[in-house]
Amino acid sequence: MLQHLDTPSLLLDRAKLERNCESMRRRVHPHGLVLRPHVKTAKSVEVTQRALDAPTGPITVSTVREAEYFFDHGFRDMLYAVGMVAHKVPRIAELTKRGARVSTIVDSVEGAKALVDASARAGVRIPAMIEIDSDGHRAGVVPKSPRLLEVAEALGPSLLGVMTHAGESYNCTSVDAIAAMAQREREAVVQSAEALRTSGHACPVVSVGSTPTVTFAPSFKGVTEVRTGVYMFHDLVMAGLGVCVIDDIAISVLASVIGHQPERHWIITDAGWMALSRDRGTSKQKVDQGFGLVCNAYGVPVEDLVVVDANQEHGIVARRDGGPIDLARYPVGSLLRILPNHACATAAQHGEYHVLQDNVPVETWERFGGW
Amino acid sequence: MLQHLDTPSLLLDRAKLERNCESMRRRVHPHGLVLRPHVKTAKSVEVTQRALDAPTGPITVSTVREAEYFFDHGFRDMLYAVGMVAHKVPRIAELTKRGARVSTIVDSVEGAKALVDASARAGVRIPAMIEIDSDGHRAGVVPKSPRLLEVAEALGPSLLGVMTHAGESYNCTSVDAIAAMAQREREAVVQSAEALRTSGHACPVVSVGSTPTVTFAPSFKGVTEVRTGVYMFHDLVMAGLGVCVIDDIAISVLASVIGHQPERHWIITDAGWMALSRDRGTSKQKVDQGFGLVCNAYGVPVEDLVVVDANQEHGIVARRDGGPIDLARYPVGSLLRILPNHACATAAQHGEYHVLQDNVPVETWERFGGW
Repeated sequence: MLQHLDTPSLLLDRAKLERNCESMRRRVHPHGLVLRPHVKTAKSVEVTQRALDAPTGPITVSTVREAEYFFDHGFRDMLYAVGMVAHKVPRIAELTKRGARVSTIVDSVEGAKALVDASARAGVRIPAMIEIDSDGHRAGVVPKSPRLLEVAEALGPSLLGVMTHAGESYNCTSVDAIAAMAQREREAVVQSAEALRTSGHACPVVSVGSTPTVTFAPSFKGVTEVRTGVYMFHDLVMAGLGVCVIDDIAISVLASVIGHQPERHWIITDAGWMALSRDRGTSKQKVDQGFGLVCNAYGVPVEDLVVVDANQEHGIVARRDGGPIDLARYPVGSLLRILPNHACATAAQHGEYHVLQDNVPVETWERFGGW
Repeated sequence: MLQHLDTPSLLLDRAKLERNCESMRRRVHPHGLVLRPHVKTAKSVEVTQRALDAPTGPITVSTVREAEYFFDHGFRDMLYAVGMVAHKVPRIAELTKRGARVSTIVDSVEGAKALVDASARAGVRIPAMIEIDSDGHRAGVVPKSPRLLEVAEALGPSLLGVMTHAGESYNCTSVDAIAAMAQREREAVVQSAEALRTSGHACPVVSVGSTPTVTFAPSFKGVTEVRTGVYMFHDLVMAGLGVCVIDDIAISVLASVIGHQPERHWIITDAGWMALSRDRGTSKQKVDQGFGLVCNAYGVPVEDLVVVDANQEHGIVARRDGGPIDLARYPVGSLLRILPNHACATAAQHGEYHVLQDNVPVETWERFGGW
């Protein structure tokens, strides 16, 4: 019974998770692509197992701790997809010596040399991808920059391939724009791979990934691997982009009504930003969902209620239009469920998933944090 | 050595912590007030011990888990300062039976009755304060509302007093405005206490609290207790309000430079929103600090650098004016420290404090989360 759970707590609808995972597999397999799901959204072995065809498989990680944790749970093939620095090499080298194949990414000659030198000192070779900046969003070598070949030279035999992440796709305002971004993402890495090969470098891996671009990419020609993560859960940002529908969102935060402010048409809950995160990813989308969209205890959106403000352990729920609410429908002590703007951020606020089957909690899955 | 810590990680300057704690004690003791520090900012026994005059003492908690954790570490006198609901009574009752004195808050007849009934079923009496809404910010009984006496009647002998939190003080734009807010906060509870006493209710405790209002309150007449929390660490929001100066901020996030985007004058670090939180509390202040103010490894702000954007594990550092940076000063692998907008939110992203003495890590203090 949901009523037996403490609040706030994080719920995960297993059927929706499995449906989302199946959808992504159906999307990428016909193209012969390796699906290397990003575990940073869920940070859970059980969730990741459902994203793969097997109990273990290739994954993408965002922290060294994720690499270590998944190694301890039998995973061996990992890409650490945040720019590598020398002082993180010893922990990766340790995993390598124990049988993992952790590849890394760099985007500068300085970074490449530091990686190669530190790996040599640690007595291992750590493969590296060159990160390509396909969208001006954050890191990576700009396509056609002479830096590409310089980094490849510095990596030498450690060079594994090229990768990019079109994070800017989260800011697109139409499906067409996402498809165009996907083309740009693909071309940036495919052209970079060709430039490397023309210069005599092997470049076996060509990797792209973001849930929106992989969903709407018109072509994967030249790509060998995709890295997606948020699709396992989906969220309001993905729904706002047209990548999923609200009903696909697999996680929600269970909250208790703790009070009312009748004059202001407010319901106060115990799910503040500590439970929801401060992510306001829908604030620039067509539909601003506040700090989250409010559902009844069965996960169905009710009366156009959103979380209009959040303090640490208080959420303020109101109608989107500020109009009156029949507060008798939401007595003190009753339960609501909040759909998250950004699954990665909301899930990160919790230490476990209460897994639901037909809205009944049936299991608890651990989730971890830290670096 | 800082260089031996993994990044990102959370640093705590012990001397600043102790100075901030001493300041607050000096502020409240001359007024004969009970200082009941809020442990929600730090969620650490060691930090809380430094806020008190003794190893244990009265504290304010924001979750039942905080009450349980601090109970396990010897604390007995606790106020759970989030509106109480019946299904949380069993855990509070359990602590009560084991010797704790956990008081609670309610702001409705419905909530009061549910508390009294559930406590009776659990075989304990749980004291309750009536929450007063002094600022229209979130919960509480509006001053002079007939609801006050109705809630008091419903509580009966469980009534302990009145409390309020002027959270709106965080949005003030001058010290004078904070002082005025403090007066409003004080008057709201003192008048409510008088109304209760006039009607024959004992109302021994009159409690206020927010770091800004307690810092600048012109009077505490009629108040018996203050609840403040963020002062232990302070943060950029407090500095923007004039409550502290930048040099008082005791926590920071240690980050590694993981790359550069020379064309855009960007430094990329491994401290994204997972390490910093998504709090943008300074966005409406006179000085917008982005996702945090950037310091060198010794904690001194450098070149007006701020974190202009943050992804999950990437921070983008740039000059506030977007101008060029001498990137050679910040090589890949070098360390920076980021001061937080909001200490409560940033600290919540971490599982421990690396405690510094003269910028050298000397201890690790556990911090916990969950509900």
